Amino acid sequence: METVSENKSFDGVQGVYTHASEVCGCDMTFGLFLPEDAKSGPVPLLWYLSGLTCTHENAMTKAAAQQWCAEQGIAIVFPDTSPRGEGIADDEAYDLGKGAGFYVDATENPWASNFKMWSYIADELPSLLGRNFELDMDRQSITGHSMGGHGALTIAMAHPDRFASVSAFAPIANPTASDWGKKQLGAYLGEDKGQWAKHDASLQMKEVGFDGPVLIDQGASDNFLDLLRPEALAHAMMARRQEGLFRMQKGYDHSYFFISSFMEDHVTFHAEALYT
Amino acid sequence: METVSENKSFDGVQGVYTHASEVCGCDMTFGLFLPEDAKSGPVPLLWYLSGLTCTHENAMTKAAAQQWCAEQGIAIVFPDTSPRGEGIADDEAYDLGKGAGFYVDATENPWASNFKMWSYIADELPSLLGRNFELDMDRQSITGHSMGGHGALTIAMAHPDRFASVSAFAPIANPTASDWGKKQLGAYLGEDKGQWAKHDASLQMKEVGFDGPVLIDQGASDNFLDLLRPEALAHAMMARRQEGLFRMQKGYDHSYFFISSFMEDHVTFHAEALYT
Repeated sequence: METVSENKSFDGVQGVYTHASEVCGCDMTFGLFLPEDAKSGPVPLLWYLSGLTCTHENAMTKAAAQQWCAEQGIAIVFPDTSPRGEGIADDEAYDLGKGAGFYVDATENPWASNFKMWSYIADELPSLLGRNFELDMDRQSITGHSMGGHGALTIAMAHPDRFASVSAFAPIANPTASDWGKKQLGAYLGEDKGQWAKHDASLQMKEVGFDGPVLIDQGASDNFLDLLRPEALAHAMMARRQEGLFRMQKGYDHSYFFISSFMEDHVTFHAEALYT
Repeated sequence: METVSENKSFDGVQGVYTHASEVCGCDMTFGLFLPEDAKSGPVPLLWYLSGLTCTHENAMTKAAAQQWCAEQGIAIVFPDTSPRGEGIADDEAYDLGKGAGFYVDATENPWASNFKMWSYIADELPSLLGRNFELDMDRQSITGHSMGGHGALTIAMAHPDRFASVSAFAPIANPTASDWGKKQLGAYLGEDKGQWAKHDASLQMKEVGFDGPVLIDQGASDNFLDLLRPEALAHAMMARRQEGLFRMQKGYDHSYFFISSFMEDHVTFHAEALYT
């Protein structure tokens, strides 16, 4: 693992690191904010999974998360959204290939050799983080935006004892029924829709749910509402009596201006779960 | 004036607008955050002047200012740092020409026809803002980063009845004695150093000072300390008995991670001056 940069931020350190990923077969870069509290012992870890087109960098610089994580004594990690580099498959569209890993382990060519974002986020990166930083890996929570909200919800529900809480900003909530989903799940996993269900937060909420609190924020003026299908997830949550809340925020869109406006709420929400 | 974009942010609106600038002879773009309070009447205005290479966009997305301005009921404007467009003079270096207007009115060619950032910030843009938005132009304060800290301090001191308070993050504090200054002041204003003094915050602090509180934050691990020369400004402030404070922040560098870490302090500082 190599240090790309470290900047002091809210008395902690905002670092960027790169490492050779075995599962992705390429170098991967991530951002990690460690609050000052990490100097005196392991701190809880919040995952932030980003959306389509993003790298590790977008949320790290635009989501205004560090201040609240510093206040709560929580680390936050910002992984990349796909494998990258020469020789990695890509597509001309912004929503497939690089920047669009969709948090699945691809089985179809040309994606299968590198596009393993599910295993990267769920297995390889946590192991690396636990070995290299002052993190209490027994206390983790997870959040994300759009495609990353989809990733956060599906990974959380598939690992029932790992995360104390899960939240999402404008998640792709029902990809098996959306053009943000059918295209990617078909390309990465093939047309056997039995393989898709694990990667649909609304279906998983209906089937298994989450053993802990869930917070979803969605902007009512989001340009992508038809693709995100928040109503499917809200229905599944409430039909299940899932502990948690789903908020439709009047006037907000899909941008980081929306995310940063509610970041304090999300970090506070996770802190309450992590510290009890 | 045309609206480029408007995003809801912390219950207010983060807008981006473009207009034909007479003094710069080109279209100019700026960001303006209006808090929700502006719906019920004019609100005070905080200016944020950006540093070398920046457009209106950097601080608008990375400085985490909106939340504190929303809390205090203050608008914040993010102007560009130079004229732009085809036919506008430029230089290969990052620190001259586009993105490097240095908040002066150029008198030398090829800059003199467009590089009028002093007049743009001090005269044209305030007039436009006052006509078009719910702003109380009798209550203004000003801040900025690096080259923008230089602009904020020099413009504030040259307009003694306009700003209730002035602050800066890592300002270019003594440009007449620095390679961040001698090059630009020479290029834009010529070699008559009598024309330079107005654009040196340390010299102006010594000569005229500021009739209100001054807050300066400087990172102790800033890579550019030799160019910024904070010691000159600190000396001038304290020699003058200028109301205010100068903080050297251990471990912080020149980045937006530094700025965002102390933005709450700056907005709160200005709010106290604006509301008394």
